[in-house]
Amino acid sequence: MLAETIAAIRPADPVALAEARAHQDRLTKPRGSLGVLEEVAVRLAGAAGVSPPPLPQPAALAIFAADHGVHARGVSPWPQEVTVQMVANFLAGGAVANAFAAQTGASVTVVDVGVAADLPDATGLVGKKVAYGTADMTEGPAMSADEVLHALEAGIVVARDLIAGGARCLITGDMGIANTTASAALVAVFTGKDPAGVTGRGTGVDDETYERKVEVVREALRVNALPGTGLPGTGLPGAGLPGTGAPGEALRALAAVGGLEHAAIAGFILAGAAARVPVILDGVIAGAAALAAAALAPDSIDHCVAGHRSVEPGHAAALDHLGLRPLVDLELRLGEGTGGLLAHPMVCAAVRVMHEVATFDSAGVTEKPV
Amino acid sequence: MLAETIAAIRPADPVALAEARAHQDRLTKPRGSLGVLEEVAVRLAGAAGVSPPPLPQPAALAIFAADHGVHARGVSPWPQEVTVQMVANFLAGGAVANAFAAQTGASVTVVDVGVAADLPDATGLVGKKVAYGTADMTEGPAMSADEVLHALEAGIVVARDLIAGGARCLITGDMGIANTTASAALVAVFTGKDPAGVTGRGTGVDDETYERKVEVVREALRVNALPGTGLPGTGLPGAGLPGTGAPGEALRALAAVGGLEHAAIAGFILAGAAARVPVILDGVIAGAAALAAAALAPDSIDHCVAGHRSVEPGHAAALDHLGLRPLVDLELRLGEGTGGLLAHPMVCAAVRVMHEVATFDSAGVTEKPV
Repeated sequence: MLAETIAAIRPADPVALAEARAHQDRLTKPRGSLGVLEEVAVRLAGAAGVSPPPLPQPAALAIFAADHGVHARGVSPWPQEVTVQMVANFLAGGAVANAFAAQTGASVTVVDVGVAADLPDATGLVGKKVAYGTADMTEGPAMSADEVLHALEAGIVVARDLIAGGARCLITGDMGIANTTASAALVAVFTGKDPAGVTGRGTGVDDETYERKVEVVREALRVNALPGTGLPGTGLPGAGLPGTGAPGEALRALAAVGGLEHAAIAGFILAGAAARVPVILDGVIAGAAALAAAALAPDSIDHCVAGHRSVEPGHAAALDHLGLRPLVDLELRLGEGTGGLLAHPMVCAAVRVMHEVATFDSAGVTEKPV
Repeated sequence: MLAETIAAIRPADPVALAEARAHQDRLTKPRGSLGVLEEVAVRLAGAAGVSPPPLPQPAALAIFAADHGVHARGVSPWPQEVTVQMVANFLAGGAVANAFAAQTGASVTVVDVGVAADLPDATGLVGKKVAYGTADMTEGPAMSADEVLHALEAGIVVARDLIAGGARCLITGDMGIANTTASAALVAVFTGKDPAGVTGRGTGVDDETYERKVEVVREALRVNALPGTGLPGTGLPGAGLPGTGAPGEALRALAAVGGLEHAAIAGFILAGAAARVPVILDGVIAGAAALAAAALAPDSIDHCVAGHRSVEPGHAAALDHLGLRPLVDLELRLGEGTGGLLAHPMVCAAVRVMHEVATFDSAGVTEKPV
């Protein structure tokens, strides 16, 4: 299923890109006056293969929930049970993601891809549990090869089902106490940056915990013989795994230091790209997952929009590496998909311009002399 | 009407502010994790005088259209007739503002406060023409004392009517070829900054026109004996007009170098504030108008949210002076209210959190140990 999904992914269509750019310049506005949003509309045209691209509405948010063995190393002040509690909160409609989704008319699906507890059936909950959380990545790989594949496939299936249900835009969401630690490790591996530069304070850690968190990331990379640690003798040197190949190495890295939700989100991105349905990425967890998706299928990123930039330093590093510019930059650090949901109305507005705005000719507006 | 409106404006309510901050900390999210949006929600609670504040929906955009005598000085590459043509485009639903308004469910009202032509009656057009454009500010005051008052009152009446019609959020919009030149002059006067630092390229001017534009702003300030030019003997020295008083001087400055739409937008802001209905400010024209509103009634700014930051350098200077942080920062330079419209769903999302998100207690989510 993974290979078939990857094989279906096409890069941005150059004809649609060119048509979209030309159309932008005919619309009744000074050229370039919509700034970054013009590029968003052009990008979505390239991804869809048609200009103007379809309106990315309605959107579907999938919150992939999973736990992390590395939590045992004291990298988060929150107890692991909060993952389960927040899943219940999402299902009851009481989380910030629910409020933001209501604002933009997005559906909310919660996917148990690896919560460390059995969850009762509930409307809106999709059971895709691969394991009761990952293993501690400082003692070896967080996931087996089978587990990482199953999690990727879970993400693919969820994306396919949401698209089959009518979604015209996918938004990534996540829940998992300690998942910023795994994200930092993934970002370090895929960008080749030092863990100290890509590890953040997550949902709030003190100085002592922060120092430990950086050391835990370093240790996980060393134990798993992954590059990016800056230590001698730990495998590939330099800029880490290449972004444009080596899918075997990418899967090994994802299994070694990723979370089940990272793998699932990578699959979700790949399936969106394969169906030419745009994917709005949320914060650092999505950024780390997108690095893995890019390593597996570089063209998948043509179908992604960076919803926001979180305060996590690893997120900026991931977006830089992927060449994505975030739309919302308001110091959010919540996860759940909240940044992606906030960006959704802007992405829709950018595309709506392509459909509804008059041209200079059609509106009889005098063009500025060039 | 102006005095009565100003007298009705109350500052942010400290009790509502405190209640909103305390409520934010009880919600099921790490403290502060919504970044700037937490402050937006708190700000609107203070403005409304109640926590949580009412949802700022539905929104109403008012596009104040007017022409500028200074256009004769060659400060814009666009012919003045584009103001009329764009008014027709707004009324036909073909402009970017219409597309963005549709995305967020906002109504669009076009107000002729000073277009240099007679406009046919049309649905959605409110006729409040004070003059056929302003006079050339480099030859004396752009408006008479009567004209500036009538334009302010036009803005007040439009805001009152929209609120009476059900609007729970006002968004400022503008249309007027050459209005970034008048905006630069206002920003220079009210912030005390040099015209070279607050004059931008508007909707697109070449280097030669830009140099002329800066000189025109300088000349307008000198001719009208206003501070901010950095030239000796031109009146008040230093930081320009004080932000917290001297309403007579503020009205004189607004009349001297403002546009009819600046005065109307200032009135619109004051009336929104008086009714405790939040006002989302668009770009540099709104920023310049808000500086005038702040000089007339400092507390009015407590009721404003900065929708975005445009690429015009005068806009950043205005927002700094007003102490406002913009929500959208995507290199827009279109005007019409487009930046304010893009911000509206985020403002709604911020407030919605206060109404719909569960508390740690109510959701049974374990709080992080402090």
